[in-house]
This record gives sequence, C-alpha cells and structure tokens, in this order.
Amino acid sequence: MNSFSVTILGSSSALPTSQRFPTSQVVRLNEQLFLIDCGEGTQIQLRRFKFKMGRINHIFISHLHGDHIYGLPGLISSLVLYGKKGELHIHAHSDLQQMMEGMMKFMNDVTDLKVVYHPLNFKRNSVVFEDKRIRITSFPLKHRISCCGFLFQELPTDKHLDKDAIEKYDIPISQRMNIKNGADLILADGSVIPNIEITIPANPSRSYGFCTDTVALMKIVPTIAGVDLLYHEATFDADLADLAKKTFHTTSIQAAEIAAAAAAKKMLIGHFSSRYKDISFLVDEARTIFPETYAANDGDCYEL
Amino acid sequence: MNSFSVTILGSSSALPTSQRFPTSQVVRLNEQLFLIDCGEGTQIQLRRFKFKMGRINHIFISHLHGDHIYGLPGLISSLVLYGKKGELHIHAHSDLQQMMEGMMKFMNDVTDLKVVYHPLNFKRNSVVFEDKRIRITSFPLKHRISCCGFLFQELPTDKHLDKDAIEKYDIPISQRMNIKNGADLILADGSVIPNIEITIPANPSRSYGFCTDTVALMKIVPTIAGVDLLYHEATFDADLADLAKKTFHTTSIQAAEIAAAAAAKKMLIGHFSSRYKDISFLVDEARTIFPETYAANDGDCYEL
Repeated sequence: MNSFSVTILGSSSALPTSQRFPTSQVVRLNEQLFLIDCGEGTQIQLRRFKFKMGRINHIFISHLHGDHIYGLPGLISSLVLYGKKGELHIHAHSDLQQMMEGMMKFMNDVTDLKVVYHPLNFKRNSVVFEDKRIRITSFPLKHRISCCGFLFQELPTDKHLDKDAIEKYDIPISQRMNIKNGADLILADGSVIPNIEITIPANPSRSYGFCTDTVALMKIVPTIAGVDLLYHEATFDADLADLAKKTFHTTSIQAAEIAAAAAAKKMLIGHFSSRYKDISFLVDEARTIFPETYAANDGDCYEL
Repeated sequence: MNSFSVTILGSSSALPTSQRFPTSQVVRLNEQLFLIDCGEGTQIQLRRFKFKMGRINHIFISHLHGDHIYGLPGLISSLVLYGKKGELHIHAHSDLQQMMEGMMKFMNDVTDLKVVYHPLNFKRNSVVFEDKRIRITSFPLKHRISCCGFLFQELPTDKHLDKDAIEKYDIPISQRMNIKNGADLILADGSVIPNIEITIPANPSRSYGFCTDTVALMKIVPTIAGVDLLYHEATFDADLADLAKKTFHTTSIQAAEIAAAAAAKKMLIGHFSSRYKDISFLVDEARTIFPETYAANDGDCYEL
C-alpha cells in the first residue's frame, strides 16, 4: 500500500504564535510531496520536520492572504540555491504571479528552475492535478477574497491476483494484467473462472479534504463526502459565531457539523485564532457533534 | 545610563538552518526598538525573544536580497492586526516600495498604520535617523547589488553636576543647565569657578556598527572606528576566500582584519554559510587576528 500522509507545518491563523506557524501542510504520497499553502516560515518548518523540499513539484495556494503565501519567496529562493531544476508548479489565483515577480526581483542569479503558475477556478470544482496514483481537485470556498479548498483522492489501484489462484490454475503471465483489470480466466478447456474467485479487491482509495479559510459552507459536503481525513478551519469557538460570520471564518461547532454531514472518518481542526492559549476546548466543543475531531499541531503527521 | 543593546534574531546567510534564521537584528535603546534587516521569520523571532514589536518604528534594510527582506510583509501584516497606529518608517533601496506593494495587495482590510519608505543613499555616508539620544548613519558596502551598513551612535549626554560642588557653592537651579552644557560658575563676588571643577564628564557615547553583505572593505574603517561592538559578516572561512570574492562576501580572517584596523572593542561575526554545522573554527580563525571575536547566535543579546 502506498504511504499517504498529511503533515501540519503551520496551524495558526493570521498571527503566528510561539507554538504555531501560519498555514502550510505537506501531503505525501510515497516520495511525492505536495505543498498546500505556504505561510511565512514554511521552508523553516520543512527543514525542521526533515522533508526533502526539492521533492515538491506542486504547490496549491488556497487564497492570497499573507498568512498563506508569505513563505513562497523564501521557499523558491532556497529551492534555487539548492539547485532544483525543471518546473515548479504553483496553483493559485492568477494575481499571485504578479505579486511574486515583484518580490523575487533580486532573487539570486541564474536559475534552472522554472516556476509555472496555474490559475485556479474559483467558480466550480476543477481537477488541478492527476497522475496514475492521485487526483487533486480544487473546490470553491467562501472567504473575504477568492478561496479554494483541495481534495486529494488516491486513485483506485488494480485488483491483486490471488497467489493461491495463480498456483492452482497456473495463470500465464500474459493474462495476469487483464485479470487485474477485471477479466475472467479462461482455461485451456474453455471453462471460465470468474474474476472474483481469483482476485483480491484493490486497496480502498483514500482521500483528504483541506478547507481553509471559509465560512461554514454546507455546499462543499458532496465534494468531501466520506473523506478519510478532513482538515477544516475552526478559527473561533462557538461563542464567537458572530465574529466568525463577519470575518468569513468557521467556528468549532460549525466545522463539526460539516464533518458530520460529510461522514468524514476523522477531522483535524486548525487555523486557530492567536487569542487561544489552549485550544483543547475547541476540540471538546467540536466533539459534541463529531467525536473524531483532533487539533492540528505543527509537526503532527497523519497517515491516511 | 541608557540601556543600549543588540539582539541577534537571525544569523544565517541565504539558507536558514535548523538553528539559524536569516538576517535580522534588534537594536534597543531603552524602550526604542530599531530593526535591522528583516529575513523570513523575523516576526516569529521577535515573538520568541519577547520583544514588543509595536515599539518598532524604524526598520533599516541593508539590501534587497530575499534573506534580508522576506519577513517584511508578514511583520507589517501582524503590526496592522495588532492595531499599530501612526507611521512605520522603512529605510531601504527605493525599489523596495514597489516590491512590497505587490506582496501587500491583499493585506487585511483597513489600517491605521502608514508605511513610509525612505530611500537610502548607496554612494556616501548619510544620517538616516537622529533624535536626542541616537544618530543612525548608513554607509556604502560593496555587494552584488546596492548595499549599506549602519552605524548606531549614542549621542553625548550633558555633563553631570558634581553634587559636592552644588552644595559647596550653593549653585542656583537657574545656572545648572548652563553648567551642564559647559559654562563656568560665576559667584556673587564675580569670581569664576571653572566648569571642570564642578562637573563630572558625561557617560561615554557607545556605538554599534552593522556590516553585511559585503566584500571586505577597508574604506569603511574610518566610519566604524572605535565602535564598542562591530557586527561583520563572515560568510566563509579563510580557505574559501576565492568564493567569498566571487560572491561579494567576507571571510572570517578578512572580518578580523577590519575589526582590528577599526580598533573595535568587540566583534560579532555572522551570516554564516549553511555549509558549516559548527562555526567555532570561524571564530578561532578570526581570533588569530582579532581576539575579541564572538559568533552571533539567534537570541544572543549584547549590552553595549
């Protein structure tokens, strides 16, 4: 089974604290690293948590508020200094390129790294990356400026051939790929062994949903339905619902309602307001609705 | 005596390490905080080392390479969120304003903080700030792009009145300010008591010189002559003198030669290449020329 994990690099909201950097996460699928958001200090956290940052080829930026992007110039500068070659793909609002070009004006010298910007669609769900193993879809959230969430879905693997069946029927190598793809086995005497008797089902496809910054938005539920892990912002506690509404953020209770409606298996809450020294009561609040709620902390790694 | 200190927030060169953030320092004169350079994560270090960042009203930026400026957008955003009012003065190359304005495009909402940019003079020494207690002078360095060092000079205080003299001659309050400023005392009978007999000299004026990034530049010696503390970059060890020359940086030995020529009282070296896990041998090298050499480490505070 592929290793598929999410590591929290930053779990604070706009103001970092002594314990929490601004938003950034790494989604790891085997040796592929995908970065979501890039708050100030992301390169420092990547180093601290021992990621090989040169393996990041795709960065997904939810929106252009500073606490989600101010780590980009430093990260790119360091990738260049480390000698990264080829392309680095940044998926973000189309304004980002201009913002970055100003800031990167005096980036060190010649570079073999080409940064390719891909504009996100903030109107409807869109596949932003897909290869044999994973599909990444952006979906609209609702914040003070254009904002997207991201859904990471492992793609179904082939079925596994049953080792006993291989031996029993002496299945020729030439047929094995077809059987993995669903074909029945036809023996030399013309008899048919149904696919289900000679295969083991593929591993279940795992998925991760990332939602920040946004008001609580029930219309995302079909998109994130059944995810193994949901990260949802819970900037405020339930008593600050009015402030959450005004600033286009979500309360712990509202996040839990979304996780419950989506039948997520587990939820991480994060993007905590710096007013909270201890965020355990936000978790407690959410658990009254969705018991499988946990607090995101910098450095936490969740294997899906 | 005023408290006058320098705190290292970051001591790495372009690539931060797990121990060293990129360049930034706080010069503190009583309750006034002056920031020099603002590498990525400066606001995180300010919080970590318990500085009240709202007290920063002047920021001095040596040059526009990313490891000296990428912390600015986040720092300013946080100052705005903390409700800082009035003016924040940034002294830097005139290109900075445009670079920042792109990056600050979506800074949160309305703000009472006005950022005022002051272009530095990269051709000759210039006073960039002065009040009753301190004078700050920029002076040209030589790097791949325009670069300045900064000299912080405490201004002379008035002389102190000798308490015994006040009593002996019953010096009227109306004359005391003039005497502190150097006047002699004229008694009722017309006789003159020389100023030197009734005063104690003012505290010595302390000074701090900051020099990064630059080739070793002997022409700065008159500017920083006799400083109490000199910070000089020593990106490389003596064996890498060719690389230092090529990249417009300084070796440990060259930094020591400058400190010695300037008769500095003490030198901190910093801006270490991330290739060095242990920088003690850079200090050892420098001490062969200038024994009062110390390594800058993040969080170190030097009282002048």
